Amino acid sequence: MVVNDRVLMGPGPCNPYPEVMAAMGRPMLGHLDPEFIALLEETNDRLRIVFGTTNALTFPISGTGSAGMEAAFVNLVGRGDTVVIGVNGVFGTRMCDVAARCGATVVQVEAEWGRPVDADRLLNAHPKPDMIALVHAETSTGVRTDVADIGANKGDALLLIDCVTSLGGLPMALDDWGVDVAYSGTQKCLGVPPGLSPLTLSDEARDRIAKVPQSWYLDLNMIAKYVSSDGGARAYHHTAPISMIYALHAGLGVVLGEGLENVIDRHAACGSALLAGLEKMGLELFAAKNHRLPQLTSVRIRDDQLPRGMTEADVRRQLLVRYGIEIGGGLGPVAGKVWRIGAMGHTARQRNVTLLLGALDELLN
Amino acid sequence: MVVNDRVLMGPGPCNPYPEVMAAMGRPMLGHLDPEFIALLEETNDRLRIVFGTTNALTFPISGTGSAGMEAAFVNLVGRGDTVVIGVNGVFGTRMCDVAARCGATVVQVEAEWGRPVDADRLLNAHPKPDMIALVHAETSTGVRTDVADIGANKGDALLLIDCVTSLGGLPMALDDWGVDVAYSGTQKCLGVPPGLSPLTLSDEARDRIAKVPQSWYLDLNMIAKYVSSDGGARAYHHTAPISMIYALHAGLGVVLGEGLENVIDRHAACGSALLAGLEKMGLELFAAKNHRLPQLTSVRIRDDQLPRGMTEADVRRQLLVRYGIEIGGGLGPVAGKVWRIGAMGHTARQRNVTLLLGALDELLN
Repeated sequence: MVVNDRVLMGPGPCNPYPEVMAAMGRPMLGHLDPEFIALLEETNDRLRIVFGTTNALTFPISGTGSAGMEAAFVNLVGRGDTVVIGVNGVFGTRMCDVAARCGATVVQVEAEWGRPVDADRLLNAHPKPDMIALVHAETSTGVRTDVADIGANKGDALLLIDCVTSLGGLPMALDDWGVDVAYSGTQKCLGVPPGLSPLTLSDEARDRIAKVPQSWYLDLNMIAKYVSSDGGARAYHHTAPISMIYALHAGLGVVLGEGLENVIDRHAACGSALLAGLEKMGLELFAAKNHRLPQLTSVRIRDDQLPRGMTEADVRRQLLVRYGIEIGGGLGPVAGKVWRIGAMGHTARQRNVTLLLGALDELLN
Repeated sequence: MVVNDRVLMGPGPCNPYPEVMAAMGRPMLGHLDPEFIALLEETNDRLRIVFGTTNALTFPISGTGSAGMEAAFVNLVGRGDTVVIGVNGVFGTRMCDVAARCGATVVQVEAEWGRPVDADRLLNAHPKPDMIALVHAETSTGVRTDVADIGANKGDALLLIDCVTSLGGLPMALDDWGVDVAYSGTQKCLGVPPGLSPLTLSDEARDRIAKVPQSWYLDLNMIAKYVSSDGGARAYHHTAPISMIYALHAGLGVVLGEGLENVIDRHAACGSALLAGLEKMGLELFAAKNHRLPQLTSVRIRDDQLPRGMTEADVRRQLLVRYGIEIGGGLGPVAGKVWRIGAMGHTARQRNVTLLLGALDELLN
């Protein structure tokens, strides 16, 4: 049924590593099979390395990145809690919606889309927040916000970060940075299909998990009895998505086999080559200099740079139809105003950058 | 890493169809790629056939079966609503927990584990419930409860059923039965890995979706704008788990290619052969006669039938280690008291029944 082999240069999914595709085809195991439990443990160990943490509670949530976001908030934020949230794009906005549904009082600290969230404004937004939350790598704009300063000055608040687009593509050091909770997705810099959300909680965060979170499916008290090894036998909660966990295990295996630093360098090199090529074509980058994500580059669309009679969507459609290349459009207030070009996971190769630049050049000039 | 090829005869996952494993290896597409949207639409059409419904809102939730349960309750049940729930096993009990977390007043109608829920008692439990909910095929006991009588007499209540273990293994006719909401899993009689939860809502149920459900990830107002075709362009909500949807599409393709009735007959034939063989060995079946699931057979464990010095868990362990066969133990109050033997999806073959009976005979006699 699926006949086209795309080069996926949008904001995700990326092209998965071949080893990941092979792993999904491995024989099915039961979710309580000792062999599967060993594989899950090894997956969690590998996640700790890429997250830069020793957190005991580190595992993949059985849902996509947004399920990780929801798990983080629904377990840790209750009615009347104050949550300060940095908002500089779609995913910060989404955090506010999710936190509000948990009954939190949300204090939004906005930054212009395309710019990072200001650490001082975030720290000074409320005298005693229960949580400070922000997006490490904003997928809607291609902007990085550094979190170490925030972690060093967070006080008693828990610090939560969204690492959906950063994990595996930027250096991560959650423990050094003072991050208490982080979640990610598999379909970005880990080179795995979408379907899981790696999540990690510090012991301090774990102590603050609600006794009965609103969500049963994402109840970390219950899930911890399945995914973590302390305390004897594994308790069934829900059936783990076995094949997807094979895929994540394999993707992390590729990353650690190549070397985490080498993988990050490969993302950086592709990002540099991409933005240099785009600027050489006269295109304007959207994200603030010094805060650009190498793995996801945003371009400000100028109508006078589009071919006569074509919209930006037509250009993306031509890339897809003529070259089999997917790039992303803008979301929300920047819909129609930006392109988002990713080079993540297995897609983060110089040849893909060269191809995209060549195809764009042919279409635009 | 995964080296053992198991025969999965527990309560799920089953062994996936070979066509499903192949489908997961197909090239990745973006979640807004027209080719992927077409595949998702076809998947939803196929789901309508196996569910026996014309419901417009029919699609796979991006999580395992329990995520489907949660999606059903969190969208349709709010604070102060009265929900009558039939409880004859783990999954009815789970429904009560999920509904209570949504703020519902739960009226439990219990039946002995191993027996079906009584339709009259369910219908008479409350004068005007907002919802009546029950499990069609209770995975913890192997019991079927018929729902047509309940649907015919439900009044203004919405009727919700859990079809995790029944879909694809029993005749289903949601529209004829008057069912408003149903969810399932992929890893049982559909022969697909775990990871998705097919969900369907009648138009009447759709009209009762909360304006802002507590869950963002499972918010059906938002998800409907991505998965359904009425109303033009697809709106991004979360990144669909692409490879798993390939798998479901392919599994449904196998089922409909073989013929839905033929697949159901195959499950029935395996179930008959299995229970005849177990009774011939002198083992006692746990589920009430005339309400037994062909796809999942529960056996009452008698200590005097176990080999000297072995626990029931030892027997299961021997099946796994010596024969590579997985069967399930009991959950909750029947832990240690029943075995659960499944023959679902690709596992529902006479040769697997013959193998299991032979292996059990060698271990027990």
